Amino acid sequence: MHRYRSHTCAQLRKADVGQTVRLSGWVHRVRDHGGLLFIDLRDHYGLTQVVADPDSPAFSIAETVRGEWVIRVDGEVKARTAETVNANLPTGEIEIFARDMEVLSGAKELPLPVFGEPDYPEDIRLKYRFLDLRRDTLHRNLVQRTKIIAEMRRRMADVGFTEYSTPILTASSPEGARDFLVPSRIHEGKFYALPQAPQIYKQLIMVSGFDRYFQIAPCFRDEDPRADRLPGEFYQLDLEMSFVEQDDVLATMEPVLRGVFETFANGKPVTQSFPRIAYDEAMRKYGSDKPDLRNPIVMEDVSEHFRGSGFKVFANILANDAKAQVWAIPAKTGGSRAFCDRMNSWAQGEGQPGLGYIFWRKEGEALEGAGPLAKNIGEERTEAIRQQLGLDDGDACFFVAGDPKKFVAFAGAARTRAGEELNLVDRDRFELCWIVDFPFYEWNEDEKKVDFGHNPFSMPQGGIEALEGQDPLTIKAFQYDMVCNGFEIASGGIRNHLPETMVKAFEIVGLDRQTVEDRFGGLYRAFQYGAPPHGGMAAGVDRIVMLLTGAKNLREITMFPMNQQAQDLLMNAPAEASPAQLRELHLRTVVSKKDE
Amino acid sequence: MHRYRSHTCAQLRKADVGQTVRLSGWVHRVRDHGGLLFIDLRDHYGLTQVVADPDSPAFSIAETVRGEWVIRVDGEVKARTAETVNANLPTGEIEIFARDMEVLSGAKELPLPVFGEPDYPEDIRLKYRFLDLRRDTLHRNLVQRTKIIAEMRRRMADVGFTEYSTPILTASSPEGARDFLVPSRIHEGKFYALPQAPQIYKQLIMVSGFDRYFQIAPCFRDEDPRADRLPGEFYQLDLEMSFVEQDDVLATMEPVLRGVFETFANGKPVTQSFPRIAYDEAMRKYGSDKPDLRNPIVMEDVSEHFRGSGFKVFANILANDAKAQVWAIPAKTGGSRAFCDRMNSWAQGEGQPGLGYIFWRKEGEALEGAGPLAKNIGEERTEAIRQQLGLDDGDACFFVAGDPKKFVAFAGAARTRAGEELNLVDRDRFELCWIVDFPFYEWNEDEKKVDFGHNPFSMPQGGIEALEGQDPLTIKAFQYDMVCNGFEIASGGIRNHLPETMVKAFEIVGLDRQTVEDRFGGLYRAFQYGAPPHGGMAAGVDRIVMLLTGAKNLREITMFPMNQQAQDLLMNAPAEASPAQLRELHLRTVVSKKDE
Repeated sequence: MHRYRSHTCAQLRKADVGQTVRLSGWVHRVRDHGGLLFIDLRDHYGLTQVVADPDSPAFSIAETVRGEWVIRVDGEVKARTAETVNANLPTGEIEIFARDMEVLSGAKELPLPVFGEPDYPEDIRLKYRFLDLRRDTLHRNLVQRTKIIAEMRRRMADVGFTEYSTPILTASSPEGARDFLVPSRIHEGKFYALPQAPQIYKQLIMVSGFDRYFQIAPCFRDEDPRADRLPGEFYQLDLEMSFVEQDDVLATMEPVLRGVFETFANGKPVTQSFPRIAYDEAMRKYGSDKPDLRNPIVMEDVSEHFRGSGFKVFANILANDAKAQVWAIPAKTGGSRAFCDRMNSWAQGEGQPGLGYIFWRKEGEALEGAGPLAKNIGEERTEAIRQQLGLDDGDACFFVAGDPKKFVAFAGAARTRAGEELNLVDRDRFELCWIVDFPFYEWNEDEKKVDFGHNPFSMPQGGIEALEGQDPLTIKAFQYDMVCNGFEIASGGIRNHLPETMVKAFEIVGLDRQTVEDRFGGLYRAFQYGAPPHGGMAAGVDRIVMLLTGAKNLREITMFPMNQQAQDLLMNAPAEASPAQLRELHLRTVVSKKDE
Repeated sequence: MHRYRSHTCAQLRKADVGQTVRLSGWVHRVRDHGGLLFIDLRDHYGLTQVVADPDSPAFSIAETVRGEWVIRVDGEVKARTAETVNANLPTGEIEIFARDMEVLSGAKELPLPVFGEPDYPEDIRLKYRFLDLRRDTLHRNLVQRTKIIAEMRRRMADVGFTEYSTPILTASSPEGARDFLVPSRIHEGKFYALPQAPQIYKQLIMVSGFDRYFQIAPCFRDEDPRADRLPGEFYQLDLEMSFVEQDDVLATMEPVLRGVFETFANGKPVTQSFPRIAYDEAMRKYGSDKPDLRNPIVMEDVSEHFRGSGFKVFANILANDAKAQVWAIPAKTGGSRAFCDRMNSWAQGEGQPGLGYIFWRKEGEALEGAGPLAKNIGEERTEAIRQQLGLDDGDACFFVAGDPKKFVAFAGAARTRAGEELNLVDRDRFELCWIVDFPFYEWNEDEKKVDFGHNPFSMPQGGIEALEGQDPLTIKAFQYDMVCNGFEIASGGIRNHLPETMVKAFEIVGLDRQTVEDRFGGLYRAFQYGAPPHGGMAAGVDRIVMLLTGAKNLREITMFPMNQQAQDLLMNAPAEASPAQLRELHLRTVVSKKDE
């Protein structure tokens, strides 16, 4: 017989009754039932119940074992009695009568329990991560994570992509976040950088004549702690294709990611055909470029109903600013004063002066718009608004007014708030869409200049002609995001592979040819020697895994995460370097002078 | 029709004749045949011949295109005439008559040619890697590399392993090589390290209750340039299993790696059942712990034939040192004075006093041992040696004498040299074996103390009893290598999961409990809380790819390698950091004082 096991702890069934078996695993729980000891034995695969009775030679050892000890058990498979069968456990019809038991590894008193799912301080959990990882939810999340990644790989290969690794010790990236630097020992005073994303390399792979690249790529950004990103590293499903237009990338990746979602959605519905929503439309309808489409609320421009109306606040805003609009946030079933007042208080908490509203109720047979705003604009305008939005008895509507650029983020938040408070959001589904036509440039109000909106390497729609002839702020980019349930899960673009168009695009934000050559030399040089039209995207692996496992925290889907202070408490990193190491790296650390 | 292509450059066949198609790709070559222009159009998938005749509207553009321009061609598929069919090309039965042509991207004069496989200076090739990568051999090697890695993943999954990523920003490793450090911005004066291998993490994964881990793992060692390792990063197929003994790991991984070799061996034979050779035996027979078993030479101890013989040099060595031995390196077909003298000169070039030999030849009917050594020991002993080694007319034998520990490396080199010079090595096969039973400790002559032989985390054979009762230098470890054609391609061990055994093992090399706790805190702590017996190995992905592609240089199987001076010439790394970056990282660079 094998030294440690003939079966895993998930394998034995009623058909095995009578066999002599050997199992090894962790003691999940020990119970003493009137002299009989019951041990739940756990391994990666499952749980099996072991019974030691006082007559068994194993009993004297069974008496000593405690939770999380690792033991080997030899014994006979017996059927459980009908009343002790555990239908929730795959091995629940049998138990092992122990004949022999060996302690493979003891355990000191546990700093946190493995049995059950109690809440424990994060720092203890991270320091004893090897215990935390034994807990069922975390264990299952991590197995699920690897399955999701394997499924991504499989589906990418199925549609003709090949995985290539790109360097991890490389040059500073132009992604805009802060790089992690790695001092060079051989080249005094110089540094490598860890890649923020393999953006430049994947474009170089296309210029090198490969056609469909992908990679489950580690990315590194030295950013301050954020709830939605772990310090240090994260993973992207990164891809790039040659000889494609935007439609090709979207049409290729939509089935891949839909397939991944469907495989792990656990029966929840997944959008079959992803709507393609222009950035401007998304902002107008949802107040966000990552709209949660499970929320049925669609905002509308209702300016005309307020222009010259008796509600002077809005009427004046509209009269004084040609860019001003009034947007409606219709809230079906929100038609109570209590709810409307709650929304109003929430808005004030968000730093707004308040949130105007109308709600509709039946007065006898008549449908009446209620609230101060309705009174001010009168019945006719109130009814016109109701008709435009298709609202009815018991519904409400909120209003925001001003320059949409300035209020849009708040309007989007109000839409989310109303949808969630009213339970209009169906949480048991995955609603996916594409956001397209992002603005190529944006106005930087601080510096009073035009800046890139998102990715400077994207191809502007209309090409060099647009750059030369059009108001930059009206130019769209071939750039797109994939959004699921209100989270951006992927982002990409068709790249600008034409060096002259690239130079022109940078010129508009005030960077000259020399700067482009200096900063993006590798790519700029490559584009001089026959570059194919190409484009691609990168999907956030961690976010997709969170959506699919329902995990609320990145640490629930990461094997060995750092804490929010960017420390690895298990391995004790970062740590001091030895003087010899610093000498070799030509470095001295500088102790900052702390203020009193 | 698609904007860029209806087919790839490898797709069209005779059956497509008459179709109007669209192709895009790189101009591989342009030839002018009496006014007709022939363009070999190349993409990732293959080549297609395009013809432009002077009557075609495409001709005026075709006249302008040069090598490596990227173009789109519309045209009609025509059958080639019988005499122009190219049987070497999958598309060789057809050509495209161009009707329309568009330049998608031009190219400046090329710094190195893509057509053909000329030798070019390494630095130019690396700076213009995107051109070098378009060349056929390199392109194919890299595609092969990704296929090999995908096959590894597939086979590991098939035998129940799950891929988990381990952190890249972590703590210093105890692997013994130099770490790359990453300064922390948040924690002043502290550093992360890039992992030399995920050794500790994979053991922690086992302690966390996962059962079969693997990873295609990036590893980082800041070592001085070596021919067989690129500066910076390399990849391992890393794996670990719980509840296993040595035999389990070997029996699990042998079919996986044999399968990978068989899949990519291109018909070359692959060892079906890997011999398991003890370290001591490998040293004795092959003079190496990574023997090339394609070389049929097996060395033997022939001391007895020289003890007290007339060859005083060897006789005295044997008489004066109880550890001394004489080893024979039999060399079939090496029986000529010219060859033996060549070997002797080679040995002198290696710093040896010379290399004694006997060779056998027929003198009439009699078989005679020739050379000075044979004369000195006389006919009877010469014949006894011949008989022991099974040599015959036309064969030779070389001899080394002294303390085997000191001469073994040279003896191994002589064995290799003789086998290769005599063409005894069958290069068209993959001979794989396991080397097992490595010594756990070795004698450090410089420091006059006992050190770990290889991996301090391996389980010593005999466990704590052996550590307590046995001469340390006689203790073997549960540690093993996989060797192919003279290269170590994998290495592993059964780990020491028992903290007290670990403390004892370190005590023998002079490190106390506190040092173990300080240096390996994460792992040592984990072993206190229920650790399963576990073991695994790591296989060198790069070396395996080199063996399977026949590449002689790591840069031929790596997409974006650094040069031997650890510089990325394409991306310009390492580079200087800005003063602001250094300030944020609490660092100052120290300019070294150069000696005159």
